[in-house]
Amino acid sequence: MRVDRDRLWRRLMTMAEVGPGVAGGSNRQALSDEDRDGRNLFIEWAEAAGCTSEFDEIGNLFVRRPGSDPERAPVLVGSHLDTQPTGGRFDGVYGVLGGLEVIETLNDEGIELAAPLEVAVWTNEEGSRFQHSMMGSAVWAGLLSLDEARALVDVDGISVGEELDRHGWAGNRPAAPSEYGATFELHIEQGPILESEALEIGVVTAVQGLRWYTLELFGHPAHAGPTPMDDRRDPARALGAVISDVYAMAAEFAPWARATFAMFRSEPVSPNTVPERIACSLDLRHPDGDVLQTMDERLGAIVAAHCGAHGVESAITVDNDSPPVQFDETCTAAVESAVVGLGFSHQRMVSGAGHDACYVARHAPTSMIFVPCDDGLSHNEAENISPDQAERGASVLLNAVLEVAR
Amino acid sequence: MRVDRDRLWRRLMTMAEVGPGVAGGSNRQALSDEDRDGRNLFIEWAEAAGCTSEFDEIGNLFVRRPGSDPERAPVLVGSHLDTQPTGGRFDGVYGVLGGLEVIETLNDEGIELAAPLEVAVWTNEEGSRFQHSMMGSAVWAGLLSLDEARALVDVDGISVGEELDRHGWAGNRPAAPSEYGATFELHIEQGPILESEALEIGVVTAVQGLRWYTLELFGHPAHAGPTPMDDRRDPARALGAVISDVYAMAAEFAPWARATFAMFRSEPVSPNTVPERIACSLDLRHPDGDVLQTMDERLGAIVAAHCGAHGVESAITVDNDSPPVQFDETCTAAVESAVVGLGFSHQRMVSGAGHDACYVARHAPTSMIFVPCDDGLSHNEAENISPDQAERGASVLLNAVLEVAR
Repeated sequence: MRVDRDRLWRRLMTMAEVGPGVAGGSNRQALSDEDRDGRNLFIEWAEAAGCTSEFDEIGNLFVRRPGSDPERAPVLVGSHLDTQPTGGRFDGVYGVLGGLEVIETLNDEGIELAAPLEVAVWTNEEGSRFQHSMMGSAVWAGLLSLDEARALVDVDGISVGEELDRHGWAGNRPAAPSEYGATFELHIEQGPILESEALEIGVVTAVQGLRWYTLELFGHPAHAGPTPMDDRRDPARALGAVISDVYAMAAEFAPWARATFAMFRSEPVSPNTVPERIACSLDLRHPDGDVLQTMDERLGAIVAAHCGAHGVESAITVDNDSPPVQFDETCTAAVESAVVGLGFSHQRMVSGAGHDACYVARHAPTSMIFVPCDDGLSHNEAENISPDQAERGASVLLNAVLEVAR
Repeated sequence: MRVDRDRLWRRLMTMAEVGPGVAGGSNRQALSDEDRDGRNLFIEWAEAAGCTSEFDEIGNLFVRRPGSDPERAPVLVGSHLDTQPTGGRFDGVYGVLGGLEVIETLNDEGIELAAPLEVAVWTNEEGSRFQHSMMGSAVWAGLLSLDEARALVDVDGISVGEELDRHGWAGNRPAAPSEYGATFELHIEQGPILESEALEIGVVTAVQGLRWYTLELFGHPAHAGPTPMDDRRDPARALGAVISDVYAMAAEFAPWARATFAMFRSEPVSPNTVPERIACSLDLRHPDGDVLQTMDERLGAIVAAHCGAHGVESAITVDNDSPPVQFDETCTAAVESAVVGLGFSHQRMVSGAGHDACYVARHAPTSMIFVPCDDGLSHNEAENISPDQAERGASVLLNAVLEVAR
């Protein structure tokens, strides 16, 4: 059985226009007005398809198609609707609208499943506005307290709690796991592997571990002209060496290690004063938890060595720590069986990106389905897939759901 | 003849409280309300000392003590009252209040000079709020057009012109050189040389050349997890290498070369996306114009090499270009003669920092007087000198003025 490609594509394109980006993508940051409008549109579509909708305490949204057997644990699919500030049209959105497309197709075919089917829209997966990625699923999974999540603030000092209350999204349903028979997250790969190997579907068996750090280097403000170079405590000098050494370390742990520096800022905002503070974010990833721990320790040593050499103080804060995840073999097999049944080329693979599925997998049997995206590009407004690629992934999701929910 | 140490010190401490800093210094950024309050206080003191005051078109403020000989070209002293965002209590302020203290002492002693004596308060010397250092003297010297200066905007988009009009500082006096018999700028050294050699006064013969750059590195936003390291166009990777190489280059041109990176920022503000753009400022200095030009060319080659290696685009903008300055020997000799007459230990020296005197020197015989400051520290709220040090420098200024203006 296949989903309706054109309906799915039309909805993807319609959703992309809610909070349009500046370069063809979307800017629908978590809990913003644009995020609200996107979720409202999704609820409208889901209710028209006969679903009920419900928010949990952290604003995770669940729409539900009832099952015929009141004893059966529901099957959960879904992803997120929030985007990066310069986000693409598919990251997250595809998993949510793919889930809805499964429901629409079941309705079209007049199929009643034994198990209820839920589509989740997790809150603040991106973590760009409020700096905790996969926030809603982390609270759901018990990895982050509701109070801590509500207290997170954006750069303007607005909190998650204030925004949830403003939108009426702090629901009554507990933000805690309930029983699920199986869960699947459909997603674009966000990397180049499937495309480079000309494969149609990735059957995801595991997810890389990641740690997010804030690095702060503290120097001694001094005049850029008279102060001799060797008398300075200059955080930029340490920064250059730290960046170079972290990339060298990532190369040592190739091909799986990832290191991404971003979010640079410094004070004071003056071109002729040695900075008092330079801060940046660092995202380190590896599929092996032991290697990730080694990278963490090496980072500490690199920062200490270069800051020590230049009289610079430093602070390393861990903002996010997601260990590697191994998915459930039964769910993975259901995905693989669906792919084989549909005749799509495929391989088993490890995800480089974190997903809500990582946290869901702690409490329910879980797997993921990847489709290739153009040039492996994501977190970029140019992120792209074709209507046929979108259809294939959603059809795999449909058949995997049929296998576990019938 | 010596100035009144306690009056000078009291005024320095009073002025430091106008726009107080967060750590004992001052925050009186150019054309802000604090800058207005500081200048108003200065005008009040100067008028009480019998001076007239006048603004030129770019807001440079001149207070004037008349001379007895209408044929004599005036003598000009002064500096600036604006500060860095986390500025000290003496940078600039000392030269302005030292000039006023010369007038007060002349009044106390009943001395009428043949030449009129002016104290200048140059507009926006620091260049931190509006990114053009020595802006007011640059316009005066014909190096920057009045329109260009008025069009400079701060981070909130407020222009110099709007602020000048708001304060009523766009005066009728042309922002252009008039004839001066001699000019002197009294300043703290902002470096450690006088202190380390236990000298009381620096007789400044020349000023280092400086260039201010904005470096922009443009990458390709991509997801921090799935995107393989070698498939990235990551501006942070180029940045680390550029920083390290620029410091290595500065070391090659030691001891006089200076390199200062500051004002780091990046977009998008997201920890799990390879940045689209990283920008920072770079301040390069050397007392030899040819060496500074060589450093400029080396910078271009360093940026091109590392950006080329990592598929990163770059832009280098020159925001400020101040060639090295050689001061007038007659004025320098007048300062030296004053120092010798007062019996202070001293040496001739080159200034590492740019000063309004650099631009004034293009149109009038000029020299500078330095006093040591604690740990050579400046552009820092902890910037400090002692009351005795303040008095010595102002007394040298007084005696240099007496030598040329009598």
